[in-house]
Amino acid sequence: MEHLTLIKVGGKIVEEQEALSRLLASFASISGRKVLVHGGGRSATAMAARLGIESRMVGGRRVTDKAMLEVVTMVYGGLVNKNIVAGLQAAGVNALGMTGADMNILLSDKRPVKEVDYGYVGDVRRVDGKSLAGLIEMGVVPVIAPLTHDGKGSMLNTNADTMAGETAKALAAYYDVTLIYCFEKKGVLRDENDDESVIPEITFPLFNKYCDEGVVQGGMIPKLENAFDAIRHGVREVIITRADAIGQENEGTRIVG
Amino acid sequence: MEHLTLIKVGGKIVEEQEALSRLLASFASISGRKVLVHGGGRSATAMAARLGIESRMVGGRRVTDKAMLEVVTMVYGGLVNKNIVAGLQAAGVNALGMTGADMNILLSDKRPVKEVDYGYVGDVRRVDGKSLAGLIEMGVVPVIAPLTHDGKGSMLNTNADTMAGETAKALAAYYDVTLIYCFEKKGVLRDENDDESVIPEITFPLFNKYCDEGVVQGGMIPKLENAFDAIRHGVREVIITRADAIGQENEGTRIVG
Repeated sequence: MEHLTLIKVGGKIVEEQEALSRLLASFASISGRKVLVHGGGRSATAMAARLGIESRMVGGRRVTDKAMLEVVTMVYGGLVNKNIVAGLQAAGVNALGMTGADMNILLSDKRPVKEVDYGYVGDVRRVDGKSLAGLIEMGVVPVIAPLTHDGKGSMLNTNADTMAGETAKALAAYYDVTLIYCFEKKGVLRDENDDESVIPEITFPLFNKYCDEGVVQGGMIPKLENAFDAIRHGVREVIITRADAIGQENEGTRIVG
Repeated sequence: MEHLTLIKVGGKIVEEQEALSRLLASFASISGRKVLVHGGGRSATAMAARLGIESRMVGGRRVTDKAMLEVVTMVYGGLVNKNIVAGLQAAGVNALGMTGADMNILLSDKRPVKEVDYGYVGDVRRVDGKSLAGLIEMGVVPVIAPLTHDGKGSMLNTNADTMAGETAKALAAYYDVTLIYCFEKKGVLRDENDDESVIPEITFPLFNKYCDEGVVQGGMIPKLENAFDAIRHGVREVIITRADAIGQENEGTRIVG
């Protein structure tokens, strides 16, 4: 099987021009087949504010009414995505910007209303790994925005970490996949006040232990849960690291089965 | 050669939900290979106004400074494009939303500053018909927003009629192309106050005669010039008609060599 690198980059990295330029250079330098999944929450919040639309978050997830769906569709699918695509093309990468609606690559169910009505938020139902692999074999590098669709004509706001994990799982049928989650820190830290306290490797038993001890907490827990889920579904390795460290050996935290 | 239908739809049609629904249904009913190129100027103007950005037009073309480039990138590439893509997917069409930057399908030069500085506006330099044909042969239906890129990292606002014409010319090397320009009227009218006075067929000598006589004027002149240019470059036929009449025989005005 050919190797494929799937990189998820969030917020700050794609929204500040300088950090983005560094990311595009490191991403361009990765050899072989690759896919980029990006976020853009800060830009959506900023654009919503300029339009007088209030951003409401519940448990770290954005409540997405009709007006907010318009904002995220245009900011994620247009502004952020095309800025990345144009930058990658300039760096010689044959990028193709996509949402889940494009070629129907990620189909979602609108999240059922329980205690919270998240509105137009999608839970991924199916990823079309075959079509993605078809594009990749044409030499295309998919650049995926955090949007899916419901198959009934509506776009849905969708968590980028989840989309990256689900896409990695679907591509594991065709490739030997390394999934890299990039964020601001060097990796999963043993001590959140010490940027150098990177945990080099986490197994599932160790993850449970760290959760119990409170070493791992907050937004890192769902990130690691996604990582272990990907490993269980055939992804070879998951790495949590800084965007700057993309492509460097022995950087970040490696998640293994 | 296989037949391919390339449809360009402008402003009103893709921006009003009811007209869009009718368009999506007629577009879905077209058999065989197809491509959609869309506009979105009204939505861009409306979004710019909401953001306190003034729209400035010179000779029907939008002056595009940095702030306006952000607006058109997110409105054309995000809001309008993904709304169409999600709608077509719901109608069973395997749509893929693209700008010229995606897979580098339309590369432009930033328009040189002469009497007017149009800002981030692109004049199409090259269309990659081969990559588009590759997608089309995968069963994909490209849905192209009126944006290109300069190959140096910047998106460029680009006229949708021109993009449709240039794309039709590039695809003429691979397909027997029918290019259809949809707008509000039934076709090119002999009398602009009589909606039924459609001219069924215009040859190039007839076009010159109509221009001299003032029968054809205003925005119809560049549209027809694009049409004749396409015919001269191998496009089989160009039809100017209403969106409602897509796929109907003997509707609209047929442009022939």
